[in-house]
Amino acid sequence: MSSTFGTLLTVTTFGESHGKGVGAVLDGCPPGMKLCEADIQPQLDRRRPGQNPLTTDRREVDQVTIYSGVENGVTLGTPIGLFVPNRDQRPGDYHRMNQIPRPSHADFTYQMKYGLRASSGGGRASARETIGRVAAGAVAEKMLQDAYGVEIVAWVSAISDIEASAVDGRAITRQAVDANWVRCPDPQAAARMEDRVARVKAEKESVGGIVTCVCRHIPPGWGEPVFDKMEAKLAQAMLSIPATKGFEIGSGFAGTRLTGSVHNDLFISRDGRLGTTTNHSGGVQGGITNGEPVVFRVAFKPPATIGLAQQTVDFGGNPVTLEAKGRHDPCVVPRAVPIVEAMAALVLADFALRQKMRL
Amino acid sequence: MSSTFGTLLTVTTFGESHGKGVGAVLDGCPPGMKLCEADIQPQLDRRRPGQNPLTTDRREVDQVTIYSGVENGVTLGTPIGLFVPNRDQRPGDYHRMNQIPRPSHADFTYQMKYGLRASSGGGRASARETIGRVAAGAVAEKMLQDAYGVEIVAWVSAISDIEASAVDGRAITRQAVDANWVRCPDPQAAARMEDRVARVKAEKESVGGIVTCVCRHIPPGWGEPVFDKMEAKLAQAMLSIPATKGFEIGSGFAGTRLTGSVHNDLFISRDGRLGTTTNHSGGVQGGITNGEPVVFRVAFKPPATIGLAQQTVDFGGNPVTLEAKGRHDPCVVPRAVPIVEAMAALVLADFALRQKMRL
Amino acid sequence: MSSTFGTLLTVTTFGESHGKGVGAVLDGCPPGMKLCEADIQPQLDRRRPGQNPLTTDRREVDQVTIYSGVENGVTLGTPIGLFVPNRDQRPGDYHRMNQIPRPSHADFTYQMKYGLRASSGGGRASARETIGRVAAGAVAEKMLQDAYGVEIVAWVSAISDIEASAVDGRAITRQAVDANWVRCPDPQAAARMEDRVARVKAEKESVGGIVTCVCRHIPPGWGEPVFDKMEAKLAQAMLSIPATKGFEIGSGFAGTRLTGSVHNDLFISRDGRLGTTTNHSGGVQGGITNGEPVVFRVAFKPPATIGLAQQTVDFGGNPVTLEAKGRHDPCVVPRAVPIVEAMAALVLADFALRQKMRL
Amino acid sequence: MSSTFGTLLTVTTFGESHGKGVGAVLDGCPPGMKLCEADIQPQLDRRRPGQNPLTTDRREVDQVTIYSGVENGVTLGTPIGLFVPNRDQRPGDYHRMNQIPRPSHADFTYQMKYGLRASSGGGRASARETIGRVAAGAVAEKMLQDAYGVEIVAWVSAISDIEASAVDGRAITRQAVDANWVRCPDPQAAARMEDRVARVKAEKESVGGIVTCVCRHIPPGWGEPVFDKMEAKLAQAMLSIPATKGFEIGSGFAGTRLTGSVHNDLFISRDGRLGTTTNHSGGVQGGITNGEPVVFRVAFKPPATIGLAQQTVDFGGNPVTLEAKGRHDPCVVPRAVPIVEAMAALVLADFALRQKMRL
Repeated sequence: MSSTFGTLLTVTTFGESHGKGVGAVLDGCPPGMKLCEADIQPQLDRRRPGQNPLTTDRREVDQVTIYSGVENGVTLGTPIGLFVPNRDQRPGDYHRMNQIPRPSHADFTYQMKYGLRASSGGGRASARETIGRVAAGAVAEKMLQDAYGVEIVAWVSAISDIEASAVDGRAITRQAVDANWVRCPDPQAAARMEDRVARVKAEKESVGGIVTCVCRHIPPGWGEPVFDKMEAKLAQAMLSIPATKGFEIGSGFAGTRLTGSVHNDLFISRDGRLGTTTNHSGGVQGGITNGEPVVFRVAFKPPATIGLAQQTVDFGGNPVTLEAKGRHDPCVVPRAVPIVEAMAALVLADFALRQKMRL
Repeated sequence: MSSTFGTLLTVTTFGESHGKGVGAVLDGCPPGMKLCEADIQPQLDRRRPGQNPLTTDRREVDQVTIYSGVENGVTLGTPIGLFVPNRDQRPGDYHRMNQIPRPSHADFTYQMKYGLRASSGGGRASARETIGRVAAGAVAEKMLQDAYGVEIVAWVSAISDIEASAVDGRAITRQAVDANWVRCPDPQAAARMEDRVARVKAEKESVGGIVTCVCRHIPPGWGEPVFDKMEAKLAQAMLSIPATKGFEIGSGFAGTRLTGSVHNDLFISRDGRLGTTTNHSGGVQGGITNGEPVVFRVAFKPPATIGLAQQTVDFGGNPVTLEAKGRHDPCVVPRAVPIVEAMAALVLADFALRQKMRL
Repeated sequence: MSSTFGTLLTVTTFGESHGKGVGAVLDGCPPGMKLCEADIQPQLDRRRPGQNPLTTDRREVDQVTIYSGVENGVTLGTPIGLFVPNRDQRPGDYHRMNQIPRPSHADFTYQMKYGLRASSGGGRASARETIGRVAAGAVAEKMLQDAYGVEIVAWVSAISDIEASAVDGRAITRQAVDANWVRCPDPQAAARMEDRVARVKAEKESVGGIVTCVCRHIPPGWGEPVFDKMEAKLAQAMLSIPATKGFEIGSGFAGTRLTGSVHNDLFISRDGRLGTTTNHSGGVQGGITNGEPVVFRVAFKPPATIGLAQQTVDFGGNPVTLEAKGRHDPCVVPRAVPIVEAMAALVLADFALRQKMRL
Repeated sequence: MSSTFGTLLTVTTFGESHGKGVGAVLDGCPPGMKLCEADIQPQLDRRRPGQNPLTTDRREVDQVTIYSGVENGVTLGTPIGLFVPNRDQRPGDYHRMNQIPRPSHADFTYQMKYGLRASSGGGRASARETIGRVAAGAVAEKMLQDAYGVEIVAWVSAISDIEASAVDGRAITRQAVDANWVRCPDPQAAARMEDRVARVKAEKESVGGIVTCVCRHIPPGWGEPVFDKMEAKLAQAMLSIPATKGFEIGSGFAGTRLTGSVHNDLFISRDGRLGTTTNHSGGVQGGITNGEPVVFRVAFKPPATIGLAQQTVDFGGNPVTLEAKGRHDPCVVPRAVPIVEAMAALVLADFALRQKMRL
């Protein structure tokens, strides 16, 4: 059950990092929607490793195949099976670490939970698991675009202590985001970020960052009180992405310092309906969208795999020095951008369908 | 469905702020556990309005009755019905605001979603809905204490820009937290917080803050990859509490600025099993607990109801000036402490039961 | 979780036969529907014990109160809390049987499952648990009537070997069903059934029977392949009613003897849309309604509680003779009629909402 | 969601009869269980078309591949992806019928529900969808065997009006069942059944039947009151199989004619624990297993596809004569045997895991 997400639009992912492949089953997608692999591949390409010399050297084509749920280019309303084979498996890279739980990895916890674990790579804790999410999310996003004109754009707003200057959430495009490989639409900050990531890689270190996401043209009324509030399911979705440590919506943690009169979003009449003068709420009130853009931020820790030597212990408690030899990213946030977008799309599309029952 | 939370231990809440009462049904609690109302009432008392002259003047006894699932002081393994009647209803207080969606309240979004809304108070968006959670959470907490010795302690770590100094999460007790009414275990910060809340109330303003929560003695292995990771469900649970805007676990947003070698929690041998030298992970790796304390923080915005005049518009788009006359809190975070603890308990207890299927 | 049923319209029941009361929370009911206790009470009255001198002597008013989800006689779209207090509790009646698992009751299995059980009565296995279902089902039925004109009518089609002659499912009304207290619309069969039940009661015996149910004016398209087929969820719903042993839809078991050319329901054009000349399918094909009446039958075993002496063993395996002294029904099927209707309504209403997501 | 079944052990199936293939994702299987394709293939072989000259001529190898969740022949506790490619697709066979809803097929209802449907074959209503169930069920069955010694055996107990004589449910084996191709362990009845099926095929007709299933060595305590009773979930599982029209457990419909003193299963002391002298209950009381064999029967209608001419109408309401040309089975019950076993295994394994939370 824990590999299934959603109420009416449900995604079920499967696959380990070093098995035959990874995939997803998306159930509940409305019938009659045009869909082919070409609608899905671009987001997988944005997620793929090896996009630039600084990210992990693992080479994967990550070509998706639709197994079911689509006929003659149109969805049938039945489960959409999506599969991406693993091609570049090098289990040998990981073999030596088998007796050593890598610090801040999931080796130790998987071993404690299941009594065993995949002998190589991160198994289900690997970022490779997110391929199924990205593929399914691309379908959800197309559904949202076709039916509501919803636009979802995420970008890197911080790497380490380098913060992007303010980005206009109402105008930002994926094209602007992809203008550089760190996916930060502030060119000055992007240049500094690129330098930083290069330096960190050279130092055999890693570095974290923040992804900001805006979802536009969402009708008022999406989100289900009380436990499935919009922000609650977005938070679950984002914190289910590997390496995430925080989520905030609208004013977030900074908003705790404001007084009510400053924080409150006053209503105005705009375009024949009610809007708000500010958007500290981040597009949600009482767990339901209010028609303003939904804006949230996700914190990603520095990747746990580093080349520097670490003093730790093996499963038996014996001191060991660990130096990662395998392929790894010094900074995952640029590749996390399409993952955040995918999870946002899956959350939003589910709420879109759930709201329909009231119309 | 959206008023139900959990997989094996499920809580379903019901009740509006101004109806006959509020309650919860807790299904899945193991049989044979000692339980009576006195196990539940203390947390309700900590949540209750009117605990000090600065919180809302609404006077409620909030006395809980167990309707089912317990016989002769022992749980039967059947659904536990919990009910708290509403006594102090003053719908008249809210009546005037009926045509005006209160800024940053849920009036507008409920109206958009449902086409109507409760004529008074916040309906299900009211903090009063959390009574059912606190009652059910107290049962979950007792289950965790009895079976595993789990301890859950939350406290106010910030009000506006006043931050508590470091609290020892491995030692902090509820008694220490309750030493002052702002529930901040740093006495100096607490004194400043009390002054600030008093001033804010005098100014007809409101103010936000942060609640930190630590969960101790959790065995390794709780949490379900990939979508029901420990941190993902905690995030959902916390963001489902009214007025929350952010969640972070372990190093959180600040951790994005660290390098991997600093952030990684190195393993050591401790008490015959593996522990970590630091706890940037916040007790979870790959969505599964590692035996270290689970530590997280929740951001609460300033309450939307303020006495100051606000320039906004009514549902018809006509400009109006709004001044709240009803009862309200200038700062909800002290009362949010038991709510955060309750939701943490519900999440943890559900995972405890889910992990049992593997033993 | 197992006391919750439904996907979008979910009912959660709670309460033991001898606790403070029984109830239900119905979540997902659309907003804006007129609703008051008087809409619910009639079906509870039809379910209530003591309606005639032959049914159980337990006297219960079974008066329902709506706790939440309704304001000014209109649903809010929020969870509807429903509660019926237990008044006539006589735990003493059952006390003597405490060490003896009553044959074909749930005493033994509850003890095995939970390690303990309610000291008196059937706990959650009691027919009294169905009160919450009937109350919630009445709300679901009103929703179906208001929105679609759906009509649900069940009746007793057999008691022991006495079978009612054919009933016209397209015309039968509840008024006709209630013309006699066995709720069999065939007067000749009804008279024989009444005699049989009286005789069985006099003999300290019990007797089983069959309830047939027809659901009319259901639009084509309800039901969700593949696991939530209309007939699959109806079967689950019906087999979750105490004392049921079988379910069949349309031609049922008898249909296994027909050849395909006889069994197939040929299409015809009728009232501007496609209908079928026969209805062996029982209104469903491939798990989805086809617009014809949904017709199904439910088998109820003879009640396990009888006055005759039974040679059995106690929990320790020691032979004992058991003679029930408490109140009990010799035949439950007349009172099962509103329970079957309620569960049918809950299933249908959930599918009605689920189908809306496709419109 | 409707293609997912189960609470802790969840199976999600996908695939149309004429797409790239069919499969399943089984989530929640405990870690550390030996598993390979050879554990799954035998049941797929029993389900496969073309096993004898009388069943459908469609030739499929139905070779299963495990995509994930297993490493070095051992389960990881992660989702098990299972896939079977479609090889023998002949969409042309079905093309002519595109404008004609086949009587008692799902063409009409899928069209009404989704507004479109797979252009050929039955899409998700096809028996081919059950491949994913059989593959996942084989894994569930292995889990039950390894951990509890559970045995599940189903057989054909009736074809049309030919009934098998009594079968000893406590001793029957799959080997005995497979002694003839109609899978009826009564040789005399089997011979008559084989003749009947041959005659029916020659007549371009089809015929229904009944499958009986016994599940042995189930511990007391499985099943979850009140909505997820053992019999309720079995009923849902069985009625979700294509072409089923009825389910009964234990005494079933015939039991409605018995009196309580005859029907009650008296307890006796046996092998150091309580057993019952009879098993009218079918192994369940109050929705929970009592340690006796779980016995149930499933009714299958005659297949809707027949070679005989049928007078029906097309989607436009115009009279047409329909004669099926495609491949089809005159009698599906022999091939339904492993499907019934698979669904039983999925239900039982889920309850086994759910009960563990109480230990």
